Amino acid sequence: MPAASRPTVGHYCGLFGIFGHPEAAYLTQLGLYAQQHRGQEAAGICTTDGTRIQRAAGMGLVGNVISPRALEAIRNPVAIGHVRYSTTGSNCDLNVQPLLFEFAGGQVATAHNGNLCNASLLRKRFEDDGHIFQTTCDTEVIVHLLAKPAHQAKPDSLAHVLGHLQGAYCLLVLFPDRLVAARDPYGFRPLSLGRLGDAWVVASETCAFDIIDAEYVRDVEPGEMITITAEGVASKQFAPTNGRGAACIFEQIYFADPSSTVFGQNVHLVRVAMGRRLAEESPVDADLVVPVPNCARCASIGYSQFSGIPFGRAFTTSHFVGRSFIMPNQADRDWAVKMKLRVIKEAVKDRRLVVIEDSVVRGTTTRGKMGALRRAGAKEIHLRVASPPIRHPCYFGIDFPDPSRLVATGRSVEEIRDYLGIDSLHYLSVEGMLSAVSMPKEKYCTACFTGDYPVDVDHPVDKYALERRQLRMFK
Amino acid sequence: MPAASRPTVGHYCGLFGIFGHPEAAYLTQLGLYAQQHRGQEAAGICTTDGTRIQRAAGMGLVGNVISPRALEAIRNPVAIGHVRYSTTGSNCDLNVQPLLFEFAGGQVATAHNGNLCNASLLRKRFEDDGHIFQTTCDTEVIVHLLAKPAHQAKPDSLAHVLGHLQGAYCLLVLFPDRLVAARDPYGFRPLSLGRLGDAWVVASETCAFDIIDAEYVRDVEPGEMITITAEGVASKQFAPTNGRGAACIFEQIYFADPSSTVFGQNVHLVRVAMGRRLAEESPVDADLVVPVPNCARCASIGYSQFSGIPFGRAFTTSHFVGRSFIMPNQADRDWAVKMKLRVIKEAVKDRRLVVIEDSVVRGTTTRGKMGALRRAGAKEIHLRVASPPIRHPCYFGIDFPDPSRLVATGRSVEEIRDYLGIDSLHYLSVEGMLSAVSMPKEKYCTACFTGDYPVDVDHPVDKYALERRQLRMFK
Amino acid sequence: MPAASRPTVGHYCGLFGIFGHPEAAYLTQLGLYAQQHRGQEAAGICTTDGTRIQRAAGMGLVGNVISPRALEAIRNPVAIGHVRYSTTGSNCDLNVQPLLFEFAGGQVATAHNGNLCNASLLRKRFEDDGHIFQTTCDTEVIVHLLAKPAHQAKPDSLAHVLGHLQGAYCLLVLFPDRLVAARDPYGFRPLSLGRLGDAWVVASETCAFDIIDAEYVRDVEPGEMITITAEGVASKQFAPTNGRGAACIFEQIYFADPSSTVFGQNVHLVRVAMGRRLAEESPVDADLVVPVPNCARCASIGYSQFSGIPFGRAFTTSHFVGRSFIMPNQADRDWAVKMKLRVIKEAVKDRRLVVIEDSVVRGTTTRGKMGALRRAGAKEIHLRVASPPIRHPCYFGIDFPDPSRLVATGRSVEEIRDYLGIDSLHYLSVEGMLSAVSMPKEKYCTACFTGDYPVDVDHPVDKYALERRQLRMFK
Amino acid sequence: MPAASRPTVGHYCGLFGIFGHPEAAYLTQLGLYAQQHRGQEAAGICTTDGTRIQRAAGMGLVGNVISPRALEAIRNPVAIGHVRYSTTGSNCDLNVQPLLFEFAGGQVATAHNGNLCNASLLRKRFEDDGHIFQTTCDTEVIVHLLAKPAHQAKPDSLAHVLGHLQGAYCLLVLFPDRLVAARDPYGFRPLSLGRLGDAWVVASETCAFDIIDAEYVRDVEPGEMITITAEGVASKQFAPTNGRGAACIFEQIYFADPSSTVFGQNVHLVRVAMGRRLAEESPVDADLVVPVPNCARCASIGYSQFSGIPFGRAFTTSHFVGRSFIMPNQADRDWAVKMKLRVIKEAVKDRRLVVIEDSVVRGTTTRGKMGALRRAGAKEIHLRVASPPIRHPCYFGIDFPDPSRLVATGRSVEEIRDYLGIDSLHYLSVEGMLSAVSMPKEKYCTACFTGDYPVDVDHPVDKYALERRQLRMFK
Repeated sequence: MPAASRPTVGHYCGLFGIFGHPEAAYLTQLGLYAQQHRGQEAAGICTTDGTRIQRAAGMGLVGNVISPRALEAIRNPVAIGHVRYSTTGSNCDLNVQPLLFEFAGGQVATAHNGNLCNASLLRKRFEDDGHIFQTTCDTEVIVHLLAKPAHQAKPDSLAHVLGHLQGAYCLLVLFPDRLVAARDPYGFRPLSLGRLGDAWVVASETCAFDIIDAEYVRDVEPGEMITITAEGVASKQFAPTNGRGAACIFEQIYFADPSSTVFGQNVHLVRVAMGRRLAEESPVDADLVVPVPNCARCASIGYSQFSGIPFGRAFTTSHFVGRSFIMPNQADRDWAVKMKLRVIKEAVKDRRLVVIEDSVVRGTTTRGKMGALRRAGAKEIHLRVASPPIRHPCYFGIDFPDPSRLVATGRSVEEIRDYLGIDSLHYLSVEGMLSAVSMPKEKYCTACFTGDYPVDVDHPVDKYALERRQLRMFK
Repeated sequence: MPAASRPTVGHYCGLFGIFGHPEAAYLTQLGLYAQQHRGQEAAGICTTDGTRIQRAAGMGLVGNVISPRALEAIRNPVAIGHVRYSTTGSNCDLNVQPLLFEFAGGQVATAHNGNLCNASLLRKRFEDDGHIFQTTCDTEVIVHLLAKPAHQAKPDSLAHVLGHLQGAYCLLVLFPDRLVAARDPYGFRPLSLGRLGDAWVVASETCAFDIIDAEYVRDVEPGEMITITAEGVASKQFAPTNGRGAACIFEQIYFADPSSTVFGQNVHLVRVAMGRRLAEESPVDADLVVPVPNCARCASIGYSQFSGIPFGRAFTTSHFVGRSFIMPNQADRDWAVKMKLRVIKEAVKDRRLVVIEDSVVRGTTTRGKMGALRRAGAKEIHLRVASPPIRHPCYFGIDFPDPSRLVATGRSVEEIRDYLGIDSLHYLSVEGMLSAVSMPKEKYCTACFTGDYPVDVDHPVDKYALERRQLRMFK
Repeated sequence: MPAASRPTVGHYCGLFGIFGHPEAAYLTQLGLYAQQHRGQEAAGICTTDGTRIQRAAGMGLVGNVISPRALEAIRNPVAIGHVRYSTTGSNCDLNVQPLLFEFAGGQVATAHNGNLCNASLLRKRFEDDGHIFQTTCDTEVIVHLLAKPAHQAKPDSLAHVLGHLQGAYCLLVLFPDRLVAARDPYGFRPLSLGRLGDAWVVASETCAFDIIDAEYVRDVEPGEMITITAEGVASKQFAPTNGRGAACIFEQIYFADPSSTVFGQNVHLVRVAMGRRLAEESPVDADLVVPVPNCARCASIGYSQFSGIPFGRAFTTSHFVGRSFIMPNQADRDWAVKMKLRVIKEAVKDRRLVVIEDSVVRGTTTRGKMGALRRAGAKEIHLRVASPPIRHPCYFGIDFPDPSRLVATGRSVEEIRDYLGIDSLHYLSVEGMLSAVSMPKEKYCTACFTGDYPVDVDHPVDKYALERRQLRMFK
Repeated sequence: MPAASRPTVGHYCGLFGIFGHPEAAYLTQLGLYAQQHRGQEAAGICTTDGTRIQRAAGMGLVGNVISPRALEAIRNPVAIGHVRYSTTGSNCDLNVQPLLFEFAGGQVATAHNGNLCNASLLRKRFEDDGHIFQTTCDTEVIVHLLAKPAHQAKPDSLAHVLGHLQGAYCLLVLFPDRLVAARDPYGFRPLSLGRLGDAWVVASETCAFDIIDAEYVRDVEPGEMITITAEGVASKQFAPTNGRGAACIFEQIYFADPSSTVFGQNVHLVRVAMGRRLAEESPVDADLVVPVPNCARCASIGYSQFSGIPFGRAFTTSHFVGRSFIMPNQADRDWAVKMKLRVIKEAVKDRRLVVIEDSVVRGTTTRGKMGALRRAGAKEIHLRVASPPIRHPCYFGIDFPDPSRLVATGRSVEEIRDYLGIDSLHYLSVEGMLSAVSMPKEKYCTACFTGDYPVDVDHPVDKYALERRQLRMFK
């Protein structure tokens, strides 16, 4: 599986934390379940009773790896949890977050979403100072920073430590007596604060609040660190924001659940707006607007609404995954597509289709889908992609493949259209994309589309440096 | 789980068979996978090399219970397979189909979709004659019939035996040297014949052909028995059809995959037509047409197209099932809904919604969904159900709950509307439903809606008689 | 694995039953555990509350396949259980005993130890009469006999049915309201009756009584059938014994646990007596008497005691079995020996050893052990086998390999000595063997040593006929 | 389970290493299997191809936790492995050895047998310096020492680091390009060097050499560090020995396999000698010498030989462990005994028994066994223990319970005899014990018997300090 060959960093993750509820562990399990779309590879929960931290974690879905008995064993009023997307392979149990360490200050558990650009550099320094590392998580370096006596001596050591980090991060840090939530000064990834009765909750996405009937209070602000104790919530701006923000627009396009509110806007509505704008930018005379399952449904609704072309359906999907399907000898180029999607031939035959994709990365799967529609007899295929072409690497937590493998690298839109074997192709413009979101342009990171990086990456620390080095450790 | 308390019969099943392909076992696994929506409880495959039959089967998804090694072990050119929906509990391994028996005529394996109305009666007779039974499958009685010396003496014993069966059945029977596919004279359940190169395939739904790139040839006709051997395909009408047919219209409404062609029509298009008719029958002034996930999407498309009200989205769904979620102490009436659906509050707030359901059975889940929409701020909720009210039991394979638990039993539509807490409610009329399908009215069974049973059920054999008795055996 | 290729019949099994104890299921699990040496392949328990029978069973050790939850689910005051030795492979779940069937008389569960010589013949007749079979257990034919209306009409149908069986069998039959224990008229296999408070217990071996602190009452007699109901215990001689008995002397030599009392004698003491006689028959001048682990310890003690040669130890054993050891490429002839035994080289070097084996079957493993002793520096190796050479097939439940694979077939003792590469070899004489047991010679079956079969086997029904035929069914 | 509540340190472990064999991983699995008696809780293997280290490990038996596929994945010519006895509970995967870390010097994997007395102190210092810890293994502190820049700067940093350690340790350290084996200057635990063709092997016990047909070369000496590279073997005395040694005599009495050679003597022969001396010290007029299974067999042989009283057998044992046995409500004091041992009543009844135990710790199990013999009718029970009374804690790796729970603490031998309910009791004297071993008295540690500690323990670092603190981490 290609997924297994990707290095593991903190990206594609979901966070949840809760302070002050007797069922904190159980609610954390639910909060992670609601964010399972942010990571299915591993899940973990750490809880504290005020004096010591306990942990339950494993590889797999949150509903599988944390048994009712394990949950009962860690039943405490304060908890943080983590779901993770990617992995380097089978021996990575050590990497499952939250990580739990002990240092001079006692116990500390950490859960991280994002990508620390200077993790490799910091790790190198710590190693030179004689420190040892056991995981490939960039999170581990944060704990080394925290444990440093000079940092421990500071009045607020964690705030001090966060000042050393570069890159994208949302962070939950659990001490036996307090829960800290922090968001990097650029605000790359989402993190929200909510309330459930007397308890405080934090989560990557607000859909985690909905499942437990918690109420959204506000976002954790870029550069803000929120400390929750028995005394209440304290906020601190641990780093200044220079006016430039970097909210990852790909959260709006692909990652987040449509029911979530992210960066101040409902994800579904943003996608509908992008779909409308897409219709405005590239109208086409056609019979049906059909989404490529499942992510493009919102944008398709927008396209259909604006264009007046009826919303339709070209595919059905299978959710019944099993472990033991094997590739037959005569390997089939469209294999992956067939296992997940089935074309409704009668709905497609002789029709002129506007097909909506949320985004196109490698292009291979999209090409397979287009071929399937063509073989089913589609008269015309007009692909409309509800985001611009992806042409630049992400250093902040999205695990795009190497630029050389992106279909849009070095190809004009016309060449891509030709590669996909379709009648017309249009990508949403950058301006169109930005028109759908509410903050000013300079508050978003659109670097994967534009190459305009919010921080200096003239000499970018190779995002895979740490992982490549670590691959020696875990096969 | 309520599902676990239901008795097991052959209904809600999917069949697949293939004759004459070196990868028959593997292709059967794929064919079952494509029909996994017809049954996720158990799966099994029997294959033959021309002289002996082998079996691999188990409880669970086909991709989990049949390992690559097991598949390799039964690699033979002829195969039948079965997926099953319901179960009585954990000790039912003996019931997993295909069943494999030995009798004087040698080995025989059977896979069954449907419900034999006279299974209990026949079983009683066999027991009185000294026969013993090991499963609760009505299929077992078929093999007893087949093994009877008087029947074995007939020129075509299986055809003779099929004449004894009453009720709904599609049947695959595998002998070491031949594969037989049969469909009851009323044609309750679908069964199609296809071709893959030189091999012949049969399946409950044509989507199983698509996944292996097989070509649809024709339906197995009511009362027809098709025998596939090395010599080719032979057809025989084992029982006359009296003009009355009984194609289960609920296959079109709910069971079958939208990509399948069933009873001569594509399922998606039938549902779209039902949705259009629904709009025609009960127009409403509203802002959005939203489907209740996931089945009502096709009908919603139809409603939107006819009414001109934009297609929208009110829910997102979770497919990440885990084993270990437990009900919290403070049980929540909308728990089940919340775990599967999330309301997109911003899409719903202050909107006048036309909500489309494919069908309403107990009404409890629908009520939960309507409540969730209301709490999210929907201004008006107009539920439109793309099928008539279900008020009568099914004796032919659909596992509706006891009539007393159907929301429509003894309630007027207005009372149902009141129970669901919505602004308006309309069910598709029987005529409207029938207008969407292509065969004459008398070729369908609509008994669950109309009480008009295609066969005499004045003294119906209690459909659960067999299972209730058997419950003693398997706890 | 060679073991996996053996057909499955009832032989090498352990039985346990209990009537009238609130913890019957739990005590049956213990009773089976104590008899686990009689079968590790599969285990099962059936219980009844007086009206219906329930079942829990599976492949593997009794402590693994029957979970506490499953045990709780079948908590009833009456139970029977079964452990089984051999298997034909991985798809044999259907064969796990007790088997549970339904017939006109209601439910019946059966557990069987032995080998029915006429099972194949009877099965053929039933099949000719139109009956179907689902397992390869000869037990299934007993239930067909029982279900036959003509037999059901008899005053005591089960006793009548037992009269039809030929061969070796101990049988537990559980009806919803009674437990029946029966032993064939020759008494091939052991079966004992015991008491635990007010409850009655039956078991293949008395060690099952010890573990639950039950008291041994008496043996079930050859040809006796004991029926236990709420009213108490009733005995019936269902078949006459003709004076000839056939207690399997191999139970004394190898099968039974040394702590059990079998056929009226403690197994350990019988083996010690055999060892003493062995020393008397074949004295040798040596330094140490060492048993081949683990079965020959009792006989070694006897040999040492009679000869005065000190008891010693040449091997240590490993009990830590794992699943994933694989044969290295350079396969090693003594591999199997090495994984289980380690030679204590210092105890063996330059010593003259009397090595005691309980029996020698194929000879390959013994040869490996002798080679290991030789390589460790043993000066002389004098093998003494505490039973005569095995040269004849068993038709009554012992799964010896084909006679052509027995080391003693067609070889003189001298030739065997040469094959084993040792200095001297002596087998216990038949007379010596019989001198250690207490019943008259004609009460034992010694056919595997003498060819003197207790019943006419001029035209023996091939013991594998049934299984070979069935192998078509279960790969 | 009491076992689960014990803290985890390196004690009760088995080590294996091999350099320069294509099947190193596989042979390590075998070498660990042969030493499985030293630890069944967890197993792990690290291998290197000369440039990077890989790891496969898990909780359970080596044959279960390392699959053939995992073994294949780490197929490299150099390997170390570890089996571990004790555990703190279910979430201890992080503690499974070998541990694998990365530091400035690259990768390093460590496997440890013993107990570092100053681990807690060193850990405290590192934590004060800002280091973080992730496991409760004292091994982790060794890697921190190694990673320290001041130590890295030394010509032979590992040798330098070993000088910091106090306590008992045998250590395997794997770098990508070399394998180091070291033994503490007192030589508490055994470690041997062997040869297999061109490859070098090291193991805790020589029985690991036997299973792979490797040849014993010599012991790794106290204070010696052996470095194996492609260039060959280099030896270095990293610390002086002051004449005092501390070979753990409990290895001879209980831990090691009888087939192993430990501290220059075959274990079996040492135990036989102890048994002989025991007979000499405490003769008794009796009928039989019987060992308590399984460890006392060697000593029993010695006792029988010296005394002339016949060797006999009073128990049979069960090796069929299952997971799901549960304590019945009416808990039974002799439960644990009954599940493992069965008394051969007929061998015991009316006999005067000399019962041999290798050692008595808590006394509860021994008491249960004596009671079982008594109830079986033993006329006299004379317990002879082949080691002195255990009255003092071990700080060097043996996990004796708290002294207050030792049966011999504060009890005279007569009081112990009374507690055990037997006729006479004799413990082997310290002199007798020492007479059976070959090195001078001052080369052994007999502290658990004598309180004479080989190193100053006036202010002993509490052996559990580290673990107790860590218990907060892992529930």
